[in-house]
Amino acid sequence: MIALLERASRDDASLVVFPELAFTTFFPRWAMDDAELLSYFERDMPSAQTQALFDRARELKIGFHVGYAELTPDGKRYNTAIVVGRDGSVLAKYRKVHLPGTTEPKPGLQYQQLEKRYFRYGDLGFEAFRAPEDLGSAIMGVLICNDRRWPEAWRVLGLKGVELVCCGYNSAAYDPYGRKSEDQALRTFHSTLVAQANAYMNSTFAVCVAKAGVEDGAGLIGGSVIVDPNGRIVGQATTLEDEAITAEIDLDLCRHGKEKMFDFAQHRRIDAYGLIAQQVGVVPPA
Amino acid sequence: MIALLERASRDDASLVVFPELAFTTFFPRWAMDDAELLSYFERDMPSAQTQALFDRARELKIGFHVGYAELTPDGKRYNTAIVVGRDGSVLAKYRKVHLPGTTEPKPGLQYQQLEKRYFRYGDLGFEAFRAPEDLGSAIMGVLICNDRRWPEAWRVLGLKGVELVCCGYNSAAYDPYGRKSEDQALRTFHSTLVAQANAYMNSTFAVCVAKAGVEDGAGLIGGSVIVDPNGRIVGQATTLEDEAITAEIDLDLCRHGKEKMFDFAQHRRIDAYGLIAQQVGVVPPA
Repeated sequence: MIALLERASRDDASLVVFPELAFTTFFPRWAMDDAELLSYFERDMPSAQTQALFDRARELKIGFHVGYAELTPDGKRYNTAIVVGRDGSVLAKYRKVHLPGTTEPKPGLQYQQLEKRYFRYGDLGFEAFRAPEDLGSAIMGVLICNDRRWPEAWRVLGLKGVELVCCGYNSAAYDPYGRKSEDQALRTFHSTLVAQANAYMNSTFAVCVAKAGVEDGAGLIGGSVIVDPNGRIVGQATTLEDEAITAEIDLDLCRHGKEKMFDFAQHRRIDAYGLIAQQVGVVPPA
Repeated sequence: MIALLERASRDDASLVVFPELAFTTFFPRWAMDDAELLSYFERDMPSAQTQALFDRARELKIGFHVGYAELTPDGKRYNTAIVVGRDGSVLAKYRKVHLPGTTEPKPGLQYQQLEKRYFRYGDLGFEAFRAPEDLGSAIMGVLICNDRRWPEAWRVLGLKGVELVCCGYNSAAYDPYGRKSEDQALRTFHSTLVAQANAYMNSTFAVCVAKAGVEDGAGLIGGSVIVDPNGRIVGQATTLEDEAITAEIDLDLCRHGKEKMFDFAQHRRIDAYGLIAQQVGVVPPA
């Protein structure tokens, strides 16, 4: 990660986006006991083991986003990401709201998806924050992995005027349910599609970053993208290896959408949206 | 339109989707007086002038979706679409919720966008309905044009289990505000992107149909698409001329998404969505 920071620094990056659970394997793919589980969690951030990353970023004057497994002082576990400023201060923390998978291990699966077992649902909502001047004073927000497939998450950030969304992910390259119908290409397509469309529909830049490749024997898709407020890809990873991709973010490009097509104050019709916040599951017509 | 019905019939179509305001020009591009305005509206549907379409569809046993300007008996104007069954009965009516444009003509524009002046906001919500057996008993919903850019509209239908969304549109090929930044290719890209992503995020088929080409001297984008519940394009118009494109809709393809990734009952977190239905415009962070 420090090597990638340094590579980005040579490209004059001011902000580096690392993926979800960047310091560990994607451990929710395994059923395990509490002692092993807790070994993946960070009680402090920075911790002794991660301090060097923070130090090097501050030396390089690069801000960064990173995801990790958070253990709170009172013993609660979250799938968390923070944004760190170019001066090393923590600007924002987000805890993943849309935890996929199951609470109980499913019999017969090669890989589990136990996020609902190992994490609590994020309790910080979808908050936007104003970045410091040395990050362009951007209105920023954070999503984590599966959140990016939920337009509600983007919209709450959109209602706060978000201009730059950071989203790290660990997305399986296989169908955890063993079906052949969702291959790696289709899953990467889905990941890119939701980044592009939700960026467009909220007139925001989005930086969606994969922990890619084979980890613990299990494949993760790549497909990291930097997307502009028109939904166009302006930076894209091309391999499943470590890459540092960069793009220039001109925040003024957010204005066209925010002031015309997606001028929310003019065009949103909340009287027709009530069900979205009232009804969880599907209620089909008679 | 009858010729297109007949062409679709030769391809064994059971449902034909015509675009928004299919019987008239896209008149909201012009400022006009009330007498001219009302000439574009239908007091009855079918009307004397549209009866032949209904008759031919019933003869061919083809259902259809069509958009038109609706004048109610008490003088209210709506941008409306209906779905007609293969037996000729009206199965559903929808009135456009997301009216774009302005109430007052904007000085200096070559083409206006006066939908907010000429129509009331739709008062029927986003309703899904169960189609008859001869249309596969699909759970269907209707959106109109600009609605397709608003994930809220799709999500309300998604919460009703929608499997097939019909959406006609008349989308300008030019930027009505005269900027060069949004050309025809970009506007078509946006149209396709939102159809694909919202279909995927709601595990539904979507049929989005353009009134394409030059009309009254003003360009309209094409890009009609039939999209599957994975967001993949399974049918696409390739010109700005009249085309009848067909695709086979296997409703079982909706199940994978609805039962796993987008199992709303398992995964939606409505406690974090409140703002969507409470706050209309943007409130930026301090």
